[in-house]
Amino acid sequence: MENGSEKFSILRITGEGRNRDEGLLAREFPLTVVLNNEELVTLLCSPSDLKYLAVGFLYSEGLLSNKEDIKKLVADEQNGIIRIETTRIKESNPDLFRRILTSACGRGISFYSETDTTSYRVTSDIKIPAEAVFNLVNQFQHESHLYSATRGVHSAALCDSKSLLVFSEDIGRHNAIDKIFGRCLLEDIPISDRIIITSGRISSEILHKVAKRGIPIVISISVPTNLAVRIAEDLGITLVGMVIGKRRMNVYCHHWRVI
Amino acid sequence: MENGSEKFSILRITGEGRNRDEGLLAREFPLTVVLNNEELVTLLCSPSDLKYLAVGFLYSEGLLSNKEDIKKLVADEQNGIIRIETTRIKESNPDLFRRILTSACGRGISFYSETDTTSYRVTSDIKIPAEAVFNLVNQFQHESHLYSATRGVHSAALCDSKSLLVFSEDIGRHNAIDKIFGRCLLEDIPISDRIIITSGRISSEILHKVAKRGIPIVISISVPTNLAVRIAEDLGITLVGMVIGKRRMNVYCHHWRVI
Repeated sequence: MENGSEKFSILRITGEGRNRDEGLLAREFPLTVVLNNEELVTLLCSPSDLKYLAVGFLYSEGLLSNKEDIKKLVADEQNGIIRIETTRIKESNPDLFRRILTSACGRGISFYSETDTTSYRVTSDIKIPAEAVFNLVNQFQHESHLYSATRGVHSAALCDSKSLLVFSEDIGRHNAIDKIFGRCLLEDIPISDRIIITSGRISSEILHKVAKRGIPIVISISVPTNLAVRIAEDLGITLVGMVIGKRRMNVYCHHWRVI
Repeated sequence: MENGSEKFSILRITGEGRNRDEGLLAREFPLTVVLNNEELVTLLCSPSDLKYLAVGFLYSEGLLSNKEDIKKLVADEQNGIIRIETTRIKESNPDLFRRILTSACGRGISFYSETDTTSYRVTSDIKIPAEAVFNLVNQFQHESHLYSATRGVHSAALCDSKSLLVFSEDIGRHNAIDKIFGRCLLEDIPISDRIIITSGRISSEILHKVAKRGIPIVISISVPTNLAVRIAEDLGITLVGMVIGKRRMNVYCHHWRVI
């Protein structure tokens, strides 16, 4: 199940003509999460770190708060089914899937002014030298073997200011980050004062996902949306984007953390 | 509402030092779709073509089949609410959001072997010269003004073999395609024997979305997943990816349509 790609016969057309060749494509795999004996969701993902993904997904959606909530976890990775039993009494919440589709932030702007988000406010006074950001992104990009092979996946990493601590790849940028947090939860990896790097664009959904975990610095190879910057500004999160080689980066808010 | 970007003050860090600058970020806007007086979903999107998006979303999700299904459409674009009344009796379907999250293809592989997908099989014998693919992609990339300004959006287009007929941009690659089909439905733009171009990766979800509309040729600037290629192969759709400049492209299946 660790094999994230599949070989295909491809017709390549160039100025020189047409030729048959082989190429690797990212695998897309359906993972069904069964929570307390009820089928909750099927996620389309890259077939690696499936336990981390299932747990990270539940964690992001507020259906798990800590490792002790998990009474039992049985993974049938071959068939793409993960069964999880939790100590929580199942809350029958018809709005769950609505919330998911609405990007876990309801009405966007209105959401982060609601009371329950005040707990997300990040107060960490960690700082990082600009040079360290360039170094981390450089390491990050060299770590992406599946991307190098297929050009078809996103990656994410949890870092301190010197190195990558946890790395993941997935066809979905949300999944890649859920895999990180799921692993941290299951393996007791501390996340306070850590940094998240993502290859993907930063929408309000991604920003909320990392804000819920108290991450003070988020770095993207790509760009944020206006809403992501506003939320990061409000929640005290440093948002860095468009990190290109060792040459340039943009800091969108709370730039005092980048020294 | 047509303004898809917002100006932000950005700190740019380069080898030469730090300087304050202004930059444009893609706007992210919550659009709530109310179907038959019931709040159905809030989509996070780029704030343009909202009517097309709402209608295209319902069309893709099978909640609309044609223009005549729409009894009333009232758009409050300022507040991001579109109310649609349809002739269909509301089917109370608790699995709707489950299906959406599962990427409109249930269990992935199992889905496209189910009976209801046989109707998607595309039999069009349209062909397109490779040179025309390069020309279309070239036009497509020059059309993406919001992308040029923000680097934060995807784009999609409906084309014939000579030119772009309908073009859209959105922070979501699904939304960009829904906007195309929503507009075609509302404005009676024929889609048979047409081509879809997308800037985004092609997952099974995207493939199903275009397959449902009977599109015979799908072109991506990026790459497909293995599952997208298998489904395209089965449904008779020509899948072209990695179109780079006027130099090269990959054809993943049904290459007989690219001459």
